[in-house]
Amino acid sequence: MPAPAKIIKNDSDFRGAIQHLQGLVSDDLTAVNGAIMDSMRSPVALIPEMASHLINAGGKRLRPMLTLAAAGSFSYTGKAHIDLAAAVELIHGATLLHDDVVDESILRRGAKTANIIWGNKESVLVGDFLFSRAFELMVRTGSITVLDILSRASAVIAEGEVLQLATQNNVSASYDMYLDVVKAKTAALFAAAAEAGAVVANASQDQQKAFYDYGLSLGIAYQLIDDVLDYSGAQGVLGKSVGDDFREGKMTLPIVFAIAAAKTGEEKSFWQRTIGNSEQKEDDLAQAIAYMKACNSLERTIEAARGFADDAIKALDKIPSGKLPQTLADIADYSVMRSA
Amino acid sequence: MPAPAKIIKNDSDFRGAIQHLQGLVSDDLTAVNGAIMDSMRSPVALIPEMASHLINAGGKRLRPMLTLAAAGSFSYTGKAHIDLAAAVELIHGATLLHDDVVDESILRRGAKTANIIWGNKESVLVGDFLFSRAFELMVRTGSITVLDILSRASAVIAEGEVLQLATQNNVSASYDMYLDVVKAKTAALFAAAAEAGAVVANASQDQQKAFYDYGLSLGIAYQLIDDVLDYSGAQGVLGKSVGDDFREGKMTLPIVFAIAAAKTGEEKSFWQRTIGNSEQKEDDLAQAIAYMKACNSLERTIEAARGFADDAIKALDKIPSGKLPQTLADIADYSVMRSA
Repeated sequence: MPAPAKIIKNDSDFRGAIQHLQGLVSDDLTAVNGAIMDSMRSPVALIPEMASHLINAGGKRLRPMLTLAAAGSFSYTGKAHIDLAAAVELIHGATLLHDDVVDESILRRGAKTANIIWGNKESVLVGDFLFSRAFELMVRTGSITVLDILSRASAVIAEGEVLQLATQNNVSASYDMYLDVVKAKTAALFAAAAEAGAVVANASQDQQKAFYDYGLSLGIAYQLIDDVLDYSGAQGVLGKSVGDDFREGKMTLPIVFAIAAAKTGEEKSFWQRTIGNSEQKEDDLAQAIAYMKACNSLERTIEAARGFADDAIKALDKIPSGKLPQTLADIADYSVMRSA
Repeated sequence: MPAPAKIIKNDSDFRGAIQHLQGLVSDDLTAVNGAIMDSMRSPVALIPEMASHLINAGGKRLRPMLTLAAAGSFSYTGKAHIDLAAAVELIHGATLLHDDVVDESILRRGAKTANIIWGNKESVLVGDFLFSRAFELMVRTGSITVLDILSRASAVIAEGEVLQLATQNNVSASYDMYLDVVKAKTAALFAAAAEAGAVVANASQDQQKAFYDYGLSLGIAYQLIDDVLDYSGAQGVLGKSVGDDFREGKMTLPIVFAIAAAKTGEEKSFWQRTIGNSEQKEDDLAQAIAYMKACNSLERTIEAARGFADDAIKALDKIPSGKLPQTLADIADYSVMRSA
């Protein structure tokens, strides 16, 4: 793992890089939002209602921007990247609807989740609808390769979610096991989004692979920071409940490190009770965070994320230099210091 | 609606026609089962475990057989119909997993449902996995047209399920509203399965349309008989609980007819209480069936199914005669008298 970064970076740098990218692809992004809106149409009123609650709730559109930026890095002048980026966001939306059912979440991006407002059944079915619409959009691109990349990624995402359920409450889950979960449930879509953008722009195999690698490493870094924020974020900034992962017994990296560092019998039985047996009292989250502070597990998770962010930046070495690849590098660079 | 059939048909005719079709496509069906098994593979052990519980639980493979039979009707000699038929069965399996979560079902084909054995969360995620794998199989066929047909059908299925949720407990739901639900949630996949088989076999546009029409009408007839069996079937034969639709307040055709026929205030308040307000007591199912008998609502539903079965048979007029189209016609013909 590389040494921690020497330069101080902060959250405003990350937000700045995102805004910079949004500016560079702003026309495309408007077209993507139009394609997403079209895809949510249905004579069944509940569908556009639920879908727009989710899709318009202020997401950064990071994943579809990876597709747009990858295609734009090769001066692509066609239109396939618009449908493709919209499809990527719809797949992401479908997984969010299903995840919130699976995790019994109540808050996302500062708003009540769809499962809380409309119910679990509705979330399952509208997720299926968005997922199907994503494939309809990909069909419009006419590219079998793109369909191949994203159908594989979708299967991997579902595998990762099942694997995460299987590791939940398992206090002996390791760093490697958790990395497998993160690669599958989060990074696979980042990787596919970036790779597919390069594919529609007719980039070389090497360059397609470079964007895949960039997306995969960025996705891992991004998820690890999400895991840190679940313990350290301020709810107002984060837009979701702090401590959700703890309450669900999710074996994310901060917990994996803290459990590995536990020396005393008292500490070991704390983790066994709260995570292994899901028996939690009101003050347990505060105690868990105190244990994490004592062993620097949040800092160590950020350090791991830093390593993956550096890998992401390095992957872009194979891409011709330009404003878009530079901004993608900045996003990776600053992503480890984001606070939301 | 055509007059009820004059010839007496019974369940053994239906089972005979299914077995006949299974015989005609037996090599293909073996290959389809192989492709399905391959698709369920995953390093995450729970996935093949749950998927095989569902997929190997003795389904008739009716939908994939429509694909095989449609392709076979044009003496297709390629292999794309195998992956396509397997994809159709995986989409069906994915919708079953999600439906059982949505309907809170406990029995399917005589076995406990996956949501009861493993849980709702697992069923949602493994459904997503099977759905993604279905698209991977379609990608292997290399046919964008096939992907177009089945991604559209998948969106329509989800729409139909949401529409059904919206009509649940709505005592004023009409015949037309329910027909919209049935076309979407069930018949769309029958239609897509048959049409896509004709597409890979390079049938003419007219013949593709004929198979689409056949599948759509057969699917409607099939679902209407399912709805009858939910009230009249013997649990041992049916493999699922009798009266599930009543308990869930589903506005299926037998109930739509019975509510429309209700004359007395007592009968009207019975339906309002049990279906409209979901307040049910132990004897209510028996009372509901008694009301249905009094107004012949089950017979009238079978009669409606008969009309759609006749439409299915008529659609096959445009297909060159042969053993496969004849057996498909028999399946439609006998489907209205099946008892499971």
